[in-house]
Amino acid sequence: MASPSDRKATIIDGKAVAQTIRSEIASEVRHLSEKYGKVPGLAVIIVGNRKDSQSYVSMKRKACAEVGIKSFDIDLPQQVSEPELISKVHELNAHPDVHGWPNLLTTLLGFTVGILVQLPLPKHINEEKVLSEISLEKDGCLELLSRSGISTKGKKAVVVGRSNIVGLPVSLLLLKADATVTIVHSHTDNPESIIREADIVIAAAGQAMMIKGSWIKPGAAVIDVGTNAVDDPSKKSGYRLVGDVDFQEACKVAGWITPVPGGVGPMTVAMLLKNTLDGAKRVIHH
Amino acid sequence: MASPSDRKATIIDGKAVAQTIRSEIASEVRHLSEKYGKVPGLAVIIVGNRKDSQSYVSMKRKACAEVGIKSFDIDLPQQVSEPELISKVHELNAHPDVHGWPNLLTTLLGFTVGILVQLPLPKHINEEKVLSEISLEKDGCLELLSRSGISTKGKKAVVVGRSNIVGLPVSLLLLKADATVTIVHSHTDNPESIIREADIVIAAAGQAMMIKGSWIKPGAAVIDVGTNAVDDPSKKSGYRLVGDVDFQEACKVAGWITPVPGGVGPMTVAMLLKNTLDGAKRVIHH
Repeated sequence: MASPSDRKATIIDGKAVAQTIRSEIASEVRHLSEKYGKVPGLAVIIVGNRKDSQSYVSMKRKACAEVGIKSFDIDLPQQVSEPELISKVHELNAHPDVHGWPNLLTTLLGFTVGILVQLPLPKHINEEKVLSEISLEKDGCLELLSRSGISTKGKKAVVVGRSNIVGLPVSLLLLKADATVTIVHSHTDNPESIIREADIVIAAAGQAMMIKGSWIKPGAAVIDVGTNAVDDPSKKSGYRLVGDVDFQEACKVAGWITPVPGGVGPMTVAMLLKNTLDGAKRVIHH
Repeated sequence: MASPSDRKATIIDGKAVAQTIRSEIASEVRHLSEKYGKVPGLAVIIVGNRKDSQSYVSMKRKACAEVGIKSFDIDLPQQVSEPELISKVHELNAHPDVHGWPNLLTTLLGFTVGILVQLPLPKHINEEKVLSEISLEKDGCLELLSRSGISTKGKKAVVVGRSNIVGLPVSLLLLKADATVTIVHSHTDNPESIIREADIVIAAAGQAMMIKGSWIKPGAAVIDVGTNAVDDPSKKSGYRLVGDVDFQEACKVAGWITPVPGGVGPMTVAMLLKNTLDGAKRVIHH
């Protein structure tokens, strides 16, 4: 364990930031409901009947209920095909005001604008492909930076990983936010020398603790998107979750760092709620 | 002028590469015509009646004719609105096999798959917005690299400029081609230090000769997408075209470099023809 004396980094408390966002959303939803008589809706797609998926979904529904967003489940059988699932997403993507969909739900909920596909999906379905059909407009990484008072303008940002789900969209958002962006990946030669130059590191490689403390520039902001299970016999479950960054080492060097768990993770649900709200606001103000 | 003794770089002859591509296309179009009785078509949109645009368009039509692609003009008045122009592009974007468009032209041409909007557009129309509606799948920069035997895999590529037309799409293509990509722009601090690390530089900033010879890593490949008019009293026209790179300086340091004019420029028409052909092949093999 890093003792308080050699830990330099401010730990970004994703849980606390997420809680702040949720309170803001609750008050905005209340306002929409009072002023327009409408509340945002979220469609949650679950494929099959995994116990863990069901419990995550019930957690998300609870989060919706807490802020006043109505949610409803769309249960699809385990053997649903990829095209069928994607066509369901398209159907839900079509805003009621654009394509007249779906009258019953629109009537019930006011409108439906958010879509969540609970992961994991069955092995015969390509998760990345399905998720790429869902427009994610906001991202927890940039929200964590801005709410921690870290400016991106003119900063060197290095994104580790080039997935369609995390690496690419975060890179484009950082670029829009005026950062100088470098994307490193499995074919990058000597990634540590590039990461060592970064003012902002977004770790999204999916490799347990691959980014060492010595790779981090002193004072840098490190956002760890990784969630990797590693064996841990001391745990009842037999494993624990770690990020793509070696937290114990990196927190001695970084200026800011997100822990795993408790960093980007809690932001997922908060940003899901925020996107649902923002989508609803656009429909109302259309 | 650089004398042969201090010029190190191989000059990438875009005109010659473009000519090779055109010959390849001609032979493929001949094959399509013989085997399927169909030839690709290109719709050329011209707004207003600028003399220079008309002469560029006639050059492109000639290029189409040379390789066997049928082309036809869509003339829109100078005062056409941006939404009208974009809706025309959408109409043309809709493949005949997908949306049944447009029966007469499909019958006449076999099919229509390519769209070209001749620039410049009138001042009240946002060019970038219109062009972003046209899917550009292939790009002259990567084609010039691969045809010059320059591999991108694991190489450090720096793209200067983040426009939706050039900077962003080239960055994503380089990333797909396994390069480690950094995008620098007007807010980047000390761009020369970043460019100096690049094995491949794509200059697309739109700033005449902003990239100096001393910014180039010895042996790097430099692709100059810039076309900037600078005053030149020695010319009859009063100006000459220069790139974003100081060619005279850079060719003493770079391993490969594209001149302006004669580098990326000639590739524009060749890649237009290639995209038109590839689109037609997809429709045929659908």
